Amino acid sequence: MSEVYAARRTRLRERCNAGGSAAALVTRPANVRYLAGAAPHGAVLLLGKREDLLVCQSPPDDRPCEGRPDDNLRVRILPQPGGDPAVAAAGLAQAQEADSLAVEEHHLTVARHRALTSVTPRLRLTDLGSAVEQLRVVKDEEEISCLRIGAEIADQALGELLESILVGRTERHLALELERRLVDHGADGPAFPTSVATGPNSGRRGHRPTDRRVEEGDFLSVCLGAAYRGYRCEIGRTFVIGTSPADWQIQLYELVFAAQRAGREALTPGAAYRDVDRAARQVLDCAGYSEGLQPLTGHGVGLEIDEDPQLAPAAMGKLDACVPVTVEPGVHLPGRGGVRIDDTLVVRPEADGGPELLTITTKELLAL
Amino acid sequence: MSEVYAARRTRLRERCNAGGSAAALVTRPANVRYLAGAAPHGAVLLLGKREDLLVCQSPPDDRPCEGRPDDNLRVRILPQPGGDPAVAAAGLAQAQEADSLAVEEHHLTVARHRALTSVTPRLRLTDLGSAVEQLRVVKDEEEISCLRIGAEIADQALGELLESILVGRTERHLALELERRLVDHGADGPAFPTSVATGPNSGRRGHRPTDRRVEEGDFLSVCLGAAYRGYRCEIGRTFVIGTSPADWQIQLYELVFAAQRAGREALTPGAAYRDVDRAARQVLDCAGYSEGLQPLTGHGVGLEIDEDPQLAPAAMGKLDACVPVTVEPGVHLPGRGGVRIDDTLVVRPEADGGPELLTITTKELLAL
Repeated sequence: MSEVYAARRTRLRERCNAGGSAAALVTRPANVRYLAGAAPHGAVLLLGKREDLLVCQSPPDDRPCEGRPDDNLRVRILPQPGGDPAVAAAGLAQAQEADSLAVEEHHLTVARHRALTSVTPRLRLTDLGSAVEQLRVVKDEEEISCLRIGAEIADQALGELLESILVGRTERHLALELERRLVDHGADGPAFPTSVATGPNSGRRGHRPTDRRVEEGDFLSVCLGAAYRGYRCEIGRTFVIGTSPADWQIQLYELVFAAQRAGREALTPGAAYRDVDRAARQVLDCAGYSEGLQPLTGHGVGLEIDEDPQLAPAAMGKLDACVPVTVEPGVHLPGRGGVRIDDTLVVRPEADGGPELLTITTKELLAL
Repeated sequence: MSEVYAARRTRLRERCNAGGSAAALVTRPANVRYLAGAAPHGAVLLLGKREDLLVCQSPPDDRPCEGRPDDNLRVRILPQPGGDPAVAAAGLAQAQEADSLAVEEHHLTVARHRALTSVTPRLRLTDLGSAVEQLRVVKDEEEISCLRIGAEIADQALGELLESILVGRTERHLALELERRLVDHGADGPAFPTSVATGPNSGRRGHRPTDRRVEEGDFLSVCLGAAYRGYRCEIGRTFVIGTSPADWQIQLYELVFAAQRAGREALTPGAAYRDVDRAARQVLDCAGYSEGLQPLTGHGVGLEIDEDPQLAPAAMGKLDACVPVTVEPGVHLPGRGGVRIDDTLVVRPEADGGPELLTITTKELLAL
């Protein structure tokens, strides 16, 4: 794996040098992990003029889910507890005779930025912007394989839940049980707080579980994901509780299903982000649900659960192959509930069979 | 409760005005919650020249664990999804004819700070520093009551675990079970990731659970806490697995127990933070464990699990009454394991009976 991290750092260095900076300081944890193989708590990565260094507050942990620092990367532990590794790294950059240092201004606070300036007055601080986030958008097969395993784990956890008795249990307990099952099946942990929504709560994006109990006739919508070796996937499904769904439930489900399918089918290399969003959104729009729709119908996933790209009306850019994204339209009717259907897929060219569906739990409307 | 939040805002406004700022923008979530009663995702609080406003991306959630915005506070929802409430709030501050705005430079990123500057060029941005964090150090009885309930919940969860079979179970499963029990007993959720450490891992502060199984003869150290209405407490205990602890285990336990007692007994109003730390630390130092001791032996708790003050050798300041802190010395012997004992207590004057212990699980060495 070591060459992978070195190659990523080389690509970033090229971008930095092209932007006129001799060195870069990466502080955002997911970016540190992407470039260094691990991101121990508080650690920062210096792309130095002569040498790269991972600067840590304490020795890195050695568990697989935490990642392992690239063997080719020198690790520097701060001698004093409580110091700021970013400040130390800026000093090391100056010691390597860099005259400028690109920092992540969208992550560094004003106070930390000032501390860097004051310890290294000779160093000109520039903005690295989201250069690392941009590198992270297209995944390699190793990364996709971690997402695939995470998706299998989430499918298993969800499948087991569906076999149990649901009526009478609270949203909070169902969410906790799903998270326990994720870990049982080998996840590092949940990829994000598991959402379980019943009855009038169903269909709300990011609903946080309450003490409401599952009742006959409810819609039940569930959204969960596994973190596996740092990579995070997402699956969302909506079910009906009881033997026979009501007509409005069947109609609403079919509508959201059609929207989600349209979004999935629009996932081709070269498709504009906003066109994928529009494909899903216009199905709901045409049916009269334009009010209160969520601002996006999908987003990238990877080391973070919410990455670039955003599949939204005003998003700029086009999909590449090997970009994993969610497609997750939904409708929520205040007071009644609603439906969300959410998959993680990898964009693939037509010649390779089109988009690869990672989350394979059925999307038929199940009555439980 | 409403008057409580208004009174807190009045105190902050007085500080701001004394510092020469007409208005303040609070962005750190725990600070927003402290002053507004709730901190919906992404919400910021404007202490305006004429009116205070809670600026949110979407309507606030109404669950008790999320808090409820103060009724006297006007809530402003952003008309467009995806906007930055801080930028909107800066515009509103300017509309109220403020000429300066104090911001939390230790929380605001460089990029957001620049966005504020560019939308409100007539507004002079100053630094609010940690003014709100300082107000938060001394708690009122309402806050302490939330911490007390949280501590009871953690004691219950831990007590139940001790009655179950432990040998053969993994650190990860024990941690998940504790977290489930916290929720069963009414916690919003865990106050922080539950730590369960066995054998050679025991005694490590902040150890993240692994797949190692509990074995006969192990030390088992556990650290957990409940979040209750936003307030977070902490308890840590170390046990021995099997019928008869080894001599080194008894000696190490008694030593850490003596250090922890010394720390607890040093908790009086007016005591210097560093003296409380020294009281606990010197017991371990004198026994020859000065190498590798953790940088602090305790810290404040409240809306965040790690708040001011820090009980550490270089900390400046003195304890006040009604400050809840942890006392948590520990020793870890690489390859063998160790002991940590951790309580949450509230500093009280001697006349009121001295420090109030919130986490009452026994600190006798239990062999399980």
